[in-house]
Formats: sequence, C-alpha cells, structure tokens
Amino acid sequence: MRIVKSVQSLRSSIKKYKDQNKTIGFVPTMGALHEGHLALIRKSRRENDIVIISVFVNPKQFGPKEDFNSYSRPEKKDILLAKNEKVDIIFYPSEKEMYPTGFLTSINVEGITDVLCGASRPGHFQGVTTVVGKLINIVTPDVMYLGQKDAQQTIVLKRMTADLNFPVTVKICPTVREADGLAMSSRNRHLTARQRETATVLYKSLKNAKKRILAGERSSARIIRSMRAEIEKNSPGKIDYIACVNADSLTPIKQLKGKVTITLAVKFGRTRLIDNTIFRI
Amino acid sequence: MRIVKSVQSLRSSIKKYKDQNKTIGFVPTMGALHEGHLALIRKSRRENDIVIISVFVNPKQFGPKEDFNSYSRPEKKDILLAKNEKVDIIFYPSEKEMYPTGFLTSINVEGITDVLCGASRPGHFQGVTTVVGKLINIVTPDVMYLGQKDAQQTIVLKRMTADLNFPVTVKICPTVREADGLAMSSRNRHLTARQRETATVLYKSLKNAKKRILAGERSSARIIRSMRAEIEKNSPGKIDYIACVNADSLTPIKQLKGKVTITLAVKFGRTRLIDNTIFRI
Repeated sequence: MRIVKSVQSLRSSIKKYKDQNKTIGFVPTMGALHEGHLALIRKSRRENDIVIISVFVNPKQFGPKEDFNSYSRPEKKDILLAKNEKVDIIFYPSEKEMYPTGFLTSINVEGITDVLCGASRPGHFQGVTTVVGKLINIVTPDVMYLGQKDAQQTIVLKRMTADLNFPVTVKICPTVREADGLAMSSRNRHLTARQRETATVLYKSLKNAKKRILAGERSSARIIRSMRAEIEKNSPGKIDYIACVNADSLTPIKQLKGKVTITLAVKFGRTRLIDNTIFRI
Repeated sequence: MRIVKSVQSLRSSIKKYKDQNKTIGFVPTMGALHEGHLALIRKSRRENDIVIISVFVNPKQFGPKEDFNSYSRPEKKDILLAKNEKVDIIFYPSEKEMYPTGFLTSINVEGITDVLCGASRPGHFQGVTTVVGKLINIVTPDVMYLGQKDAQQTIVLKRMTADLNFPVTVKICPTVREADGLAMSSRNRHLTARQRETATVLYKSLKNAKKRILAGERSSARIIRSMRAEIEKNSPGKIDYIACVNADSLTPIKQLKGKVTITLAVKFGRTRLIDNTIFRI
C-alpha cells in the first residue's frame, strides 16, 4: 500500500492503472476508520482491481463552532487498518494541497442541503460537495462507495454527480452497527460511558417506529412524537431533529407512503450523532 | 462527422476512443460558429486525435432580460462548418438533456465573477461554470480550447478547472478579428450597418491605449478616460465598463504594471460587445 500526499503523484499512479484498463473503487473518508468504513473498503476491494481511499478532514464542511479541531486523526491506526484491507493507495492530502492560496470555487446543491443536517450546519453540504467533486476529479474512480448512515449526504452526492455528469457510479452501503445497535461513527469515541450506553436509544427508536409503521401507522406526526418521547425518556440526548421524509427528495411526508427515510440527529453533550432507517411502505 | 444528442450515446463513443488511447480536444460553443470558433477547432484538430465540439445555447448563463431567445441558432450552417473542419462529433444536447427535471446543482467561482461582465450580468458566470463543468465531465477531453475574446470567462474557467481538479488542460487562443479589427462574435450579426461600422472603435481604442502605455503612460485612470472619450466620440455605443485589471486576478490596477488586461463592454442598441487586450509591461 502506498501513502500519497500530492495530487500530481496520485494522478501519475492512476494514469498507469488506467493504461492497464484497471477499474478503480474509491472510498472518501475523514479518517478515524471504523467498521463502517472497512465495510465500504471491503466491498470496493471485491468489486474493483484497484482500491483508493482518501483521508482528509475537510475544514470546509465544519462550521466555526464545530469539532474540526477535536475531530479524531489517528493516522497510524488508519494506515494499519487500510493496509490490512489491501487498499492500494491512501490519498492523504494536506489542507494546502486541497485548497491552495487563491482557491475560489464551490459546488452547491440547492434545496435538499438546507433541511435536516443542513439546517443545523449551514455551509456543511457545500463543503462536502466541493471536496467530493474535487476528489472524484483527482481519483477518477469507476465506483465511489458511501455509507447509508449519512443519509442526507448520500442523497446530496448522488444529486451532484448526476446533475454535473460526473462519470462515476455511486454505491450506497448499509450502516454498520455496534453489537447493541449504535451506528458506527468516528464521533462515538467522544461519548462518556453514560452517553454511550444511552445512545442506543436512537437505533431502538428507529426500529420501533419502523415496526409501528409496518403494523399500519401512517401518521408521521405520531411517529415523530413517540420517537421524541422514547429518546427523551431514555437518554440525556438533546434532539436536533427527527423527520419522516421521502427517501429521494428529502421532503417531509405527513401520511407515510412510498420510499420513506426516518432520520434523526441528537446531541449528547458536544457530540452530535445521526442515524436513519429507509424502507418502502 | 456524427451529430450526437444524448449524453449516453456520446459517452459510449468516447469510451471507444479512450480504449484506443486517442486524445480528445474539445471546443464548447453556443453555435453561430464564426472564424473565432473555427480557429479553436483547427487548433484542436492539429493537436488531438479526436475533435468534439458542443453546440448548446445555455439558458443558465442568460439573465431574464438578456438575448437568450434572439440568440442566433443557425443549425444547418454550423453543422456544415464543423464538417468542413473535420470535427468528429458535434454534441447537440437539448435543454432537457442538460437540465433534466430535478436539477439542483451549480458550480460557483467567488469574487472574480462579481466584477466586469459579472457585475452587469448577475448569475452569468454561474451558468457558464455549471455548464462547462458538466461538459467536461461528459466529454472528458484532454484539452479544452477557449477564445481570448471572453477574457473574464477564460480566467473564471481556468480558476474553476484548477480549483476543482478537473483533469483537463485549458488552452486560450487569440481573438480572431474582422479585417477592420472588430472582434468576431456571434452577436455582431445583430448590429445595424452604422453600429457595425462604428464598432471598430472598440479595438482601435484598445490599440491606442496599449500604444500609450508602452510609450510610458502608467495611469489607469487617464487611459480609461481617453478610451471612454474615443468611444463616445466615434460611436453611438453606451459603455458598460472599461477597466485595467491584473490579467490573472481581474483586480483593478491604478498604476499599470505586470500582466495587464484592458477590457471593455459596450452596448450598441441591444447588442452588447466585449473586447480586450492583454500585455506585459
């Protein structure tokens, strides 16, 4: 496995792969790799000749009061994990390599970036779309793999790649969970013991909601109310949002039908956790 | 020469070229081809195995009061001209092919798009960067050819391709002029006889300005004042702007030095003409 820091050097490796007609699978990450990332990497490994991952904690997707500085950066461990999964190249650019002096450009997806996580995190998705657009242009992968845990991010990035005709297939892979159901996240390590223990209520509330809907409940308001009660009763978490939305457009649904995403964001102290479930009614 | 209307069909042709390791030169146009476009196409023909041009009058780069509807669309003549230049493919997409229902994405370059033409045409450059980003992703050219006449557009698109790491080389080619010096433009055909005749003052004023600067004049204010007087005296044109700017950053220069662009936009009736000259002091 090679660790590559410059765009130019990555491009020259990729040119060799392309000249040999090798397919490239790509997993963009912010490092602090966990089983969720590893599942993406393994799928990429099975489906492509070459696997490239990027590790870049992207300042543009953090707000001024967010956890950019405290975001975990366990470089050595990440490198070891990637090596174990037979990653071919880790792309590890510096901030200056990605955003040199004079950088002025952004990619924006309207509408679906202003709601849910976008409402609490203004500018977040612009940072995500801009960096992922850059990474796709740098890596020129055949397939890019994203985790379902960041439901809104998957919708936004699929919209962006379709709208701008990026020549890449985007594959969304299921959320990987801890044994007790908590969605894997690099941010879980910041939870206190009590927060960690009670955070399982997020997944439980999603499972219970899905169960009630499949049993006939169709009122989104009632579902959200009961989830809110369940989370508030069983954890110290402060709810940012709980929403029932159309899985493609992210527009809220009152009467549940079609392809539905129930999605939530809850803060445990300074740690903001997200989770979701998608199903068809 | 093939005329291709769908992204999918264009992609499958391009895949074949790439599999044969052929290089692709690309000239994006809004049609109404003139000698300026043909010079770009000829350069692309000399330097690449395959030449693709796009003809798309992009609604997103026209303001609501601008000439989108009246913009010339001489399809048959364009096709003939392209054929004569041995273009391999004309990409001729419909509006729906480029902006299908649900389209939400844009590319934005900050700062350098708010001045000069961007000040008079809000949203114009966002339309340009978005469509050219799409076209680069669709055509995946090795080299893209742009005309120097649209000076600000060349700077904005070079900034965009560099910032977002689009894997393409951008080449800027000199402005092609009529025998009397008027810069070639698809909009020239809308000039009345008197407007057409007097419009030559634009190029003359640029030449005179350059001459004075090379003879020692360093005051941008004096240069602009004399150009303004010359244009107002010799034509019915209404000046939108005349500016002396740094050729890379487009920031105004008071004391002329370095790589300078003198650039102007002047309206003759409803027809807005632009021209510029670039030189190093």
